[in-house]
Amino acid sequence: MSTVPAPTPALRREHDLLGERDVPADAYWGIHSLRATENFPITGIPISVYPQLIDALAAVKEAAARANEELGLLPKAKADAIAAACREIRAGHLHDQFVVDVIQGGAGTSTNMNANEVVANRALELLGHPKGAYEHLHPNEDVNLSQSTNDVYPTAVKVATVSAVHGLLRAMAVVQDAFAAKALEFRDVLKMGRTQLQDAVPMTLGQEFSAYAVMIDEDRARLAEAVELIHEINLGATAIGTGLNAPAGYAETARRHLAEITGMPLVTAANLVEATQDCGAFVHLSGVLKRIAVKLSKSCNDLRLLSSGPRAGLNEINLPPVQAGSSIMPGKVNPVIPEVVNQVAFEVIGNDVTITMAAEAGQLQLNAFEPVILHSLAKSITSLRAACLTLAERCVTGITANTEVLRASVETSIGLVTALNPHIGYTAATEIAQEALSTGRGVAELVLEKGLLPAERLAELLTPERVAGAA
Amino acid sequence: MSTVPAPTPALRREHDLLGERDVPADAYWGIHSLRATENFPITGIPISVYPQLIDALAAVKEAAARANEELGLLPKAKADAIAAACREIRAGHLHDQFVVDVIQGGAGTSTNMNANEVVANRALELLGHPKGAYEHLHPNEDVNLSQSTNDVYPTAVKVATVSAVHGLLRAMAVVQDAFAAKALEFRDVLKMGRTQLQDAVPMTLGQEFSAYAVMIDEDRARLAEAVELIHEINLGATAIGTGLNAPAGYAETARRHLAEITGMPLVTAANLVEATQDCGAFVHLSGVLKRIAVKLSKSCNDLRLLSSGPRAGLNEINLPPVQAGSSIMPGKVNPVIPEVVNQVAFEVIGNDVTITMAAEAGQLQLNAFEPVILHSLAKSITSLRAACLTLAERCVTGITANTEVLRASVETSIGLVTALNPHIGYTAATEIAQEALSTGRGVAELVLEKGLLPAERLAELLTPERVAGAA
Amino acid sequence: MSTVPAPTPALRREHDLLGERDVPADAYWGIHSLRATENFPITGIPISVYPQLIDALAAVKEAAARANEELGLLPKAKADAIAAACREIRAGHLHDQFVVDVIQGGAGTSTNMNANEVVANRALELLGHPKGAYEHLHPNEDVNLSQSTNDVYPTAVKVATVSAVHGLLRAMAVVQDAFAAKALEFRDVLKMGRTQLQDAVPMTLGQEFSAYAVMIDEDRARLAEAVELIHEINLGATAIGTGLNAPAGYAETARRHLAEITGMPLVTAANLVEATQDCGAFVHLSGVLKRIAVKLSKSCNDLRLLSSGPRAGLNEINLPPVQAGSSIMPGKVNPVIPEVVNQVAFEVIGNDVTITMAAEAGQLQLNAFEPVILHSLAKSITSLRAACLTLAERCVTGITANTEVLRASVETSIGLVTALNPHIGYTAATEIAQEALSTGRGVAELVLEKGLLPAERLAELLTPERVAGAA
Amino acid sequence: MSTVPAPTPALRREHDLLGERDVPADAYWGIHSLRATENFPITGIPISVYPQLIDALAAVKEAAARANEELGLLPKAKADAIAAACREIRAGHLHDQFVVDVIQGGAGTSTNMNANEVVANRALELLGHPKGAYEHLHPNEDVNLSQSTNDVYPTAVKVATVSAVHGLLRAMAVVQDAFAAKALEFRDVLKMGRTQLQDAVPMTLGQEFSAYAVMIDEDRARLAEAVELIHEINLGATAIGTGLNAPAGYAETARRHLAEITGMPLVTAANLVEATQDCGAFVHLSGVLKRIAVKLSKSCNDLRLLSSGPRAGLNEINLPPVQAGSSIMPGKVNPVIPEVVNQVAFEVIGNDVTITMAAEAGQLQLNAFEPVILHSLAKSITSLRAACLTLAERCVTGITANTEVLRASVETSIGLVTALNPHIGYTAATEIAQEALSTGRGVAELVLEKGLLPAERLAELLTPERVAGAA
Repeated sequence: MSTVPAPTPALRREHDLLGERDVPADAYWGIHSLRATENFPITGIPISVYPQLIDALAAVKEAAARANEELGLLPKAKADAIAAACREIRAGHLHDQFVVDVIQGGAGTSTNMNANEVVANRALELLGHPKGAYEHLHPNEDVNLSQSTNDVYPTAVKVATVSAVHGLLRAMAVVQDAFAAKALEFRDVLKMGRTQLQDAVPMTLGQEFSAYAVMIDEDRARLAEAVELIHEINLGATAIGTGLNAPAGYAETARRHLAEITGMPLVTAANLVEATQDCGAFVHLSGVLKRIAVKLSKSCNDLRLLSSGPRAGLNEINLPPVQAGSSIMPGKVNPVIPEVVNQVAFEVIGNDVTITMAAEAGQLQLNAFEPVILHSLAKSITSLRAACLTLAERCVTGITANTEVLRASVETSIGLVTALNPHIGYTAATEIAQEALSTGRGVAELVLEKGLLPAERLAELLTPERVAGAA
Repeated sequence: MSTVPAPTPALRREHDLLGERDVPADAYWGIHSLRATENFPITGIPISVYPQLIDALAAVKEAAARANEELGLLPKAKADAIAAACREIRAGHLHDQFVVDVIQGGAGTSTNMNANEVVANRALELLGHPKGAYEHLHPNEDVNLSQSTNDVYPTAVKVATVSAVHGLLRAMAVVQDAFAAKALEFRDVLKMGRTQLQDAVPMTLGQEFSAYAVMIDEDRARLAEAVELIHEINLGATAIGTGLNAPAGYAETARRHLAEITGMPLVTAANLVEATQDCGAFVHLSGVLKRIAVKLSKSCNDLRLLSSGPRAGLNEINLPPVQAGSSIMPGKVNPVIPEVVNQVAFEVIGNDVTITMAAEAGQLQLNAFEPVILHSLAKSITSLRAACLTLAERCVTGITANTEVLRASVETSIGLVTALNPHIGYTAATEIAQEALSTGRGVAELVLEKGLLPAERLAELLTPERVAGAA
Repeated sequence: MSTVPAPTPALRREHDLLGERDVPADAYWGIHSLRATENFPITGIPISVYPQLIDALAAVKEAAARANEELGLLPKAKADAIAAACREIRAGHLHDQFVVDVIQGGAGTSTNMNANEVVANRALELLGHPKGAYEHLHPNEDVNLSQSTNDVYPTAVKVATVSAVHGLLRAMAVVQDAFAAKALEFRDVLKMGRTQLQDAVPMTLGQEFSAYAVMIDEDRARLAEAVELIHEINLGATAIGTGLNAPAGYAETARRHLAEITGMPLVTAANLVEATQDCGAFVHLSGVLKRIAVKLSKSCNDLRLLSSGPRAGLNEINLPPVQAGSSIMPGKVNPVIPEVVNQVAFEVIGNDVTITMAAEAGQLQLNAFEPVILHSLAKSITSLRAACLTLAERCVTGITANTEVLRASVETSIGLVTALNPHIGYTAATEIAQEALSTGRGVAELVLEKGLLPAERLAELLTPERVAGAA
Repeated sequence: MSTVPAPTPALRREHDLLGERDVPADAYWGIHSLRATENFPITGIPISVYPQLIDALAAVKEAAARANEELGLLPKAKADAIAAACREIRAGHLHDQFVVDVIQGGAGTSTNMNANEVVANRALELLGHPKGAYEHLHPNEDVNLSQSTNDVYPTAVKVATVSAVHGLLRAMAVVQDAFAAKALEFRDVLKMGRTQLQDAVPMTLGQEFSAYAVMIDEDRARLAEAVELIHEINLGATAIGTGLNAPAGYAETARRHLAEITGMPLVTAANLVEATQDCGAFVHLSGVLKRIAVKLSKSCNDLRLLSSGPRAGLNEINLPPVQAGSSIMPGKVNPVIPEVVNQVAFEVIGNDVTITMAAEAGQLQLNAFEPVILHSLAKSITSLRAACLTLAERCVTGITANTEVLRASVETSIGLVTALNPHIGYTAATEIAQEALSTGRGVAELVLEKGLLPAERLAELLTPERVAGAA
């Protein structure tokens, strides 16, 4: 529209194996990142969507620089500049310079190159040089010194994953606590338990909610175990695990620095060739995330079922309304929070298949498909965390019980007859149940009428509290 | 225990590329089958578990023999003997001689070799020779003449699959008819429709069952389309699709004979190199089977939900009791038939993942993993067929409706207010709904009390038949 | 940091079933969208990431307004304003106002509400009213008139999907053409075909690439069939398919307008109750996308294998270098484009599992999980399209053949012996092969040495062109 | 054909909730089993295909009888007879009497009933009564006393699974040892390592095989952890976890007896309501089995790739021939053992999806789909065990290395240049690599020619042993 020509953006020229290309002069990323964005226009989602990954890359680059300095390969001034740039990144700066797509070929090379370029250019600035003056500090020869994508990338992914999993563990504790609080609140509310959706035997609503809390507690224990495996890194393995081009002592020195920087008890894998090609820990972690998804989904299915109605459903509990339920049906409130948790679960389960296929497709000394493993894992962890928090805060905490509906279902249910089974025998109990069913009458009156039990004994056996058991 | 030594079983000696081995003298299978059973002791399930595969192998061998005879490569006497042996197999004989495991390495070579050996030895007998006298008629040089595992095996799998799918289509028609009959029977039974498990608006139970019938009808149409693709065969492709070692005209001649023998309108693929390596039609078919599984499972989930109770559930319909439901709860009858259908569906969906991975793993000119594709497809088709029949005969046909429960739910439901939405506006309707909910009162009386509609107009609008619509 | 207080952003107050909330005065979205963004902070990705969905929602709202006008339910002025707002949206405006998360509870209600609010507020402006003046034109009572989320949302998803699939079909044609051009270019390049990764029999490189082109061609045919099913819509079904609250003739009138607006041959489902609850067409489409993914992945696996090396690999073809392959190994060029396609395939296959689970989880008259179905389908289609284009343009087009390497492999291969099989018999051929293997000698010289064939006949049989066959 | 009428088989009449039925007089199973076989004609595979399940059922029944005796509910004579019958079953008898289908509705009720009937009828015989004389010892009232399917069945599944997993662990150790022995054998064999199928840097073949051994070792550790979780049982929970109808102290007494009988350190779950509905431990175990499958499949992919050829492939190693490879290509030997392992892996991964869906589908106090979980788990464990053993014994143990081919690939590879990277810099190294590639010349001669390094230093750096590293 404007008749004034846009100013030509300032450019700087960079070169690589394939030739020369211009990049914007103010970009911290360089020619490798440029080519990667052109080669992988897949999802439109840059890796900066995962800030924990960016922070982890910066942590690895800082640790490597310190190790190289300590081992005499990198001058202190360069190491200091690299470390300062990395700390800026971990403070939240320059994340928008991590521009390559979350799904990329090359086993993470483009992500590593993007990091090398951003760190180098920021370090150059800190040293008083312009961006692109790689003769003073080079993305590959300095920032990537003693490293390969094949050890840097999985190490960064692991550091990022550990951090993300800790967030998920906290969110799971929140929803566990919410369920546990309801279990306590509902400890005296009697209801019918159901198996195969058929009336079974009595229990308390507190027992029902307690089971949800216990499930999450067990899943947290499994997740905490699985994330332990993620602390094993292959930094120092370089290309295939032989440590080629990394100096003696590098792996241990870099690990020590990285552990200090991240505060994580990282350990170096005993067999670096194996560690460099193996994605087993990611498959394992994804399997545990899938387990969590399965259990959360099951619990949310139950919440939707128990709150069905209000008049043509079970109507045992009420979920707090959080939005109008319908554009057409006035007054309808839907279980939208459990529904969104179900959908997250379905996506986590799908992600697990993606991760499984990517892991299986690794060949010889490397798995080239780690980017999609990272992307899928990160999606699963992020969405599960959000799902746990919204489930706790916008649903579980506000659940109320329809105590009278619940009690009535116990008093009229055929299921009560099961309590009489040991006292009158399976055959007699079956006949009572059938008569109650066919006539619509209550179990208790039939038992008395037939003289199967004296009234006092029956009353004692049918105390709901006793029926619910000590479990 | 016995002191009498067991008689040494009679043996005959055969040899192959690797050396010599003894096989039981009365076995129709030979050294190749023997080695395969030793190499692949995986599932313990022999390929004879799929009689349609055995019949299809025999059909292919007969068609090949006839084509070889017609093209002057095989003497009439040999061709006749081979054909006679194949017809015996298709009449149900010798199936127990197909002994190799359903999961096997080698792209189906062992299955093909097993067929070559059984056909050769039976043909030898018909020609008056003892089993193993391969100088008179050879498993490879005669029975397998102009063929390769790589065209014989997928062709046989396709013929077997077409046959199996026709059985499934018939079973789907049975359960569709059962649902349609119930739709007719329940056409005047009013009930509340539900969305997101919440009371929505009225409908008829007939409409609900009609939807199940229509779903199956659509799935049958998709399955009939998918099986069309399976009629494309690569017989004559030999090893990689170039037709090496098959004489000119063989592919068309063999196809013609196979079409006659099977009665199937088989066509030869236009590009045999592509057809020999591609498992796309199997992936596609499995995708359609998965769709069928999804819909059947959804319908069975609904049946279980609608029949929940009897007193602490929806209790809208009754499934016919087919077995005692509980070893401990007298009188309990469970929805065991829908439950078994659900489980079949879960297995079909898992099989689809197996097939997907096996198809993706094909390399260059062949997919070596067709045996597990066959096994998974055959399981899916067989189990779905059984599930459809048992669902129709032992569940759907006997379903009854609790008409009074259903009608009461319409009359008391908040959902009725939706019908008033266009007449009193969304805002007023919302307020009525809220008041009905909070007070437990009925929608109709509130509308009248507030003078929102004259009584006659309201009655007209609330006629359940009108509300249920013309759909 | 600043001591000057930020200006309080202008707000407007809106209310709904749950109470009142302030929204930014300049937002076109309203209270329903606000609550949805608070309830579903799951992925951080708003629905505007799928412009085809936003356009489709606008098309549906315009069609509904025109149908309501035509049937006398909506004044022309309101219909015109709604239609004008919708056309602006389809021209690319206001997409940033579609703010709800791609994964959301409520069966798409929040997406529909978001659309109702944006359209209403823009229409209000066009009518000279301020945003929020719903007494003049109401999101629910006017924009959503005669509609329900349960018919609007799936209809919009289908329109968006049809549009996206057409983009994928075009991209598939591009990569098919690229493979076909290479098939032509390489039609005279002889090479060894392989089965089970073992040398098999000769073929041409053109045949190998032709197979890739044919695979895609078949997949395009399947996709074109599958998208036909997506043209069946349930607009007019309202809440559960009974058409409650939509006037007589509405479904057909709205469908006609929507077909005109979109240019798509849409049809109304015969059974709207079934159509409203059924996700079969989405499951089917996803199954076809999975098939495409499987085939693309297999082809890319082959490209990576054939270009392996350069010195310790097959080294048969060269992929064009598109970026430096390693941060540590100079000169290394990796198959990054096929690798990214593999990863897209793995994600599509995972998405299929997500869609399958979401479809299976539908209950009674609705599937509440359509948002994750949409999200997964849209991801699959978008990523596959990008993968096809980058594969064609950045890889296949630039592939070159190492003709001499390929020819040498034919001349020295044991596989040539197969060509002699019909002429010297399987047993003799096997012995020649074994001797060639154990001695390292060539097949031809051994055949001559043993006098199995005269030299001229052998030469004729071993002409590579003849061996490669007519296929 | 015969004119003599077949003798009427002897029958006995039994009755249940639904009425009366005749069963064969010599059958140990009864009316409940009969109905189940009629209701679930799904796979044709009876539960006796899993002998460990049958043994586990017998162990649970014996433990329950002893607990009932100890708590005064069951006379010693009955308990002794039940225990004797159970011990016979665990000694391998009567397995053919377990006739119900592996896929069944009813949450395992039919399996439990089948066990109750077989145990009761054998116990009756031991007591001197005829089969069917349930007035003396009743399947439900005596054998199933204090029990429910809902605690018996999952407990038996767990005991069976623990036993099966121990078999798998032993088989994994066998294949691990086989790989480790090869790692030792090949420790001095130099070869090129590869990343992304491109030549990377040198390593030893011993390192390559060592990685496979380490992978299995890690997987064994994970499996050993996962099976620990399976030791937690819910025996005593009865129907829903409240322990209704089981006497005080029963859970602990029965657990103690079961631990003694099985020799397994079983523990009773802390929360029996949760334990009765939760399938988390099965999902977890299946996730670990999937991880094992992924790693085995990856290793087998590598074996197939490394042994490709013999002349148009990598030809680095030789797999032992175990059967003729082709029905048409003489002398062809295929990697059939790795191929069958791949297929087992694909099935295990598919089974994991089945198990995931079945677990997610549990509702309220029970998961009705445990039979398909058991079936899928048992298939995975059984097939993986067989795959490990056949891989070890028929493949890995016989692998030989083509040492000269491997050494030549190192000496000519461009990858050597990486070793010079730290000594001549990334840029110079890249140029050398490019020149070597374009000219076909060797890296070493180019480095010398350009005077980048003195000859002695170069020789030192290029010692393959040094290049392979200390890893």
